[in-house]
Amino acid sequence: MNIKTDRIGIIGSGSWATAISKMLLENVGQINWFFRKTETIDTFRETGYNPRYLQSVEFNVEQINFFNNVDTLVDNSDIIVLAVPSAFLPEILGGLKTDLSSKYFLSGIKGIVTNDNLLVVEYLKNYFNVPYENVGVIAGPSHAEEVALEKLSYLTVASIEETKATNFAKLIQSEYIYTSISDDIWGTEYTSVMKNIIAIGAGIAHGLRYGDNFQAVLVSNAIHEIKRFVDTVHPITRDIKDSAYLGDLLVTVYSQFSRNRLLGTLIGRGYSVRNAFLDMNMVAEGYYASRSIHEINKQYNVSLPICEAVYRILYENIPSKKEIAQLALKMN
Amino acid sequence: MNIKTDRIGIIGSGSWATAISKMLLENVGQINWFFRKTETIDTFRETGYNPRYLQSVEFNVEQINFFNNVDTLVDNSDIIVLAVPSAFLPEILGGLKTDLSSKYFLSGIKGIVTNDNLLVVEYLKNYFNVPYENVGVIAGPSHAEEVALEKLSYLTVASIEETKATNFAKLIQSEYIYTSISDDIWGTEYTSVMKNIIAIGAGIAHGLRYGDNFQAVLVSNAIHEIKRFVDTVHPITRDIKDSAYLGDLLVTVYSQFSRNRLLGTLIGRGYSVRNAFLDMNMVAEGYYASRSIHEINKQYNVSLPICEAVYRILYENIPSKKEIAQLALKMN
Repeated sequence: MNIKTDRIGIIGSGSWATAISKMLLENVGQINWFFRKTETIDTFRETGYNPRYLQSVEFNVEQINFFNNVDTLVDNSDIIVLAVPSAFLPEILGGLKTDLSSKYFLSGIKGIVTNDNLLVVEYLKNYFNVPYENVGVIAGPSHAEEVALEKLSYLTVASIEETKATNFAKLIQSEYIYTSISDDIWGTEYTSVMKNIIAIGAGIAHGLRYGDNFQAVLVSNAIHEIKRFVDTVHPITRDIKDSAYLGDLLVTVYSQFSRNRLLGTLIGRGYSVRNAFLDMNMVAEGYYASRSIHEINKQYNVSLPICEAVYRILYENIPSKKEIAQLALKMN
Repeated sequence: MNIKTDRIGIIGSGSWATAISKMLLENVGQINWFFRKTETIDTFRETGYNPRYLQSVEFNVEQINFFNNVDTLVDNSDIIVLAVPSAFLPEILGGLKTDLSSKYFLSGIKGIVTNDNLLVVEYLKNYFNVPYENVGVIAGPSHAEEVALEKLSYLTVASIEETKATNFAKLIQSEYIYTSISDDIWGTEYTSVMKNIIAIGAGIAHGLRYGDNFQAVLVSNAIHEIKRFVDTVHPITRDIKDSAYLGDLLVTVYSQFSRNRLLGTLIGRGYSVRNAFLDMNMVAEGYYASRSIHEINKQYNVSLPICEAVYRILYENIPSKKEIAQLALKMN
């Protein structure tokens, strides 16, 4: 790749962006980091931590070049790490003047760019002529909070060129981050998107008082469903039981803190979708992912009973009790 | 099978035996049920529930023929349901005078008969000339407590003859028990044994303060490990992602109430194995399973890093912190 590793830029200021910055700084001397507000930058400089996320992570601010202009950050970076909610990506990158086609991207985004239902790698290719070879995807089970606490985590870095996957992986590995590489940028991205839909489904079932026996069956059926979809959409050799797929699904579905699962639980308890969002005061990626996968699957017609059940509950106003009872008949 | 369904006998008086009896009584008019102590039978008759397990399940005692002699129960039964800890099986069946070779067995036992490291189906064949065709295995994720509450659960009934699997399944299915069939009596049994070892490993990691990211990776690696083992020991076509395998693993590993996981957690926290047992005041099946799988694997030499790590911690006094750190290097 031959990249000067002090020219890495982070776009994103949330938990995952903060965790990735921490991982990177185990390996590189300097990072460029974008924040929208100068006040956030001022506070960060003063206190040594990101004022809004993972405050327990102390940074040496001498190692951070703060930017509040994305163009300037991109101009000063050869590798761009993306870690923003996928919904914000067009707004952030859309107005850029800098050419992105010769940059390297490392995506920590687990979501679809919903405007045209594109994966992040597809969005970068279609809108900015970034070749697939120049994108790496960070996959695997990864609560940012645990990375912050330096709890041992395993990440898979996917890139269609093995050398680049290896090089990207070297940027984030450390004593508490073990890495694997993969050539499957599509399968890992789709899994990271679909697992949020499954987590909503698991939450709905939980809200409806289904038990752990049912949840285990739901997850077993879900990994079959994800495999069917990714093997159809992008048929390459992959083992869906690997931690980049199954592990990512498990850590989300069995998390008590997942926003997607919480959204589902509220709906299962009887909240309307709108009231569930109001109650949560935040957005769950799986809500948008549900519609995107539904749309994308129109051309593939893969059997996706769990994702479709969640879609009908979220978007077609079908009562969750009825829908999950129907779904239950299709599982085994 | 052509069996008079009022000639079903239950051997076992614990939670799972009680749950299975409940399931059976949804379909048959009468069951024979063995209890060791006449006092237990007297109390059960008076109160209408099993005095020691799943007291919330009310039985119509008119439907139960109580026995406190196994020979008489077996004599009066064509189908024998086994639901005792595997360690007790030789003691219970060993002294029988009745010929078992023409009986049908339905095994709800999740464990190995440790004396000679035999699966239940092998033990029945070797010691009592019960042909493999006459044994069904009840597999799948199944907390007995949830069956008691009639929470929807999915069970897989395995038998090497499809018709018999179907007939066995009909005995236990109901509005809250959905059944599938399988021909894999070995794979389902071995999975139900190995998952308890994995649960001990998950508990140890939890006790050592590894987080959820790590657990998700452990489980992903575990299902690979189980697949390697069962595909070697009994190579037939099976999909290890099915709920009879993966689901059973998940419900155990992610259970907060699993005795196996608790044993592991105590050991991870620094208890000696002996003190952990004293503290728990009960036995975890996975403890014995760990030694049995270790012994059985001597002839197969399958790579089982998780099971072997648990074995070394339990039986070779290797400090859990060191052993899990070594294991972590082998996972991905």
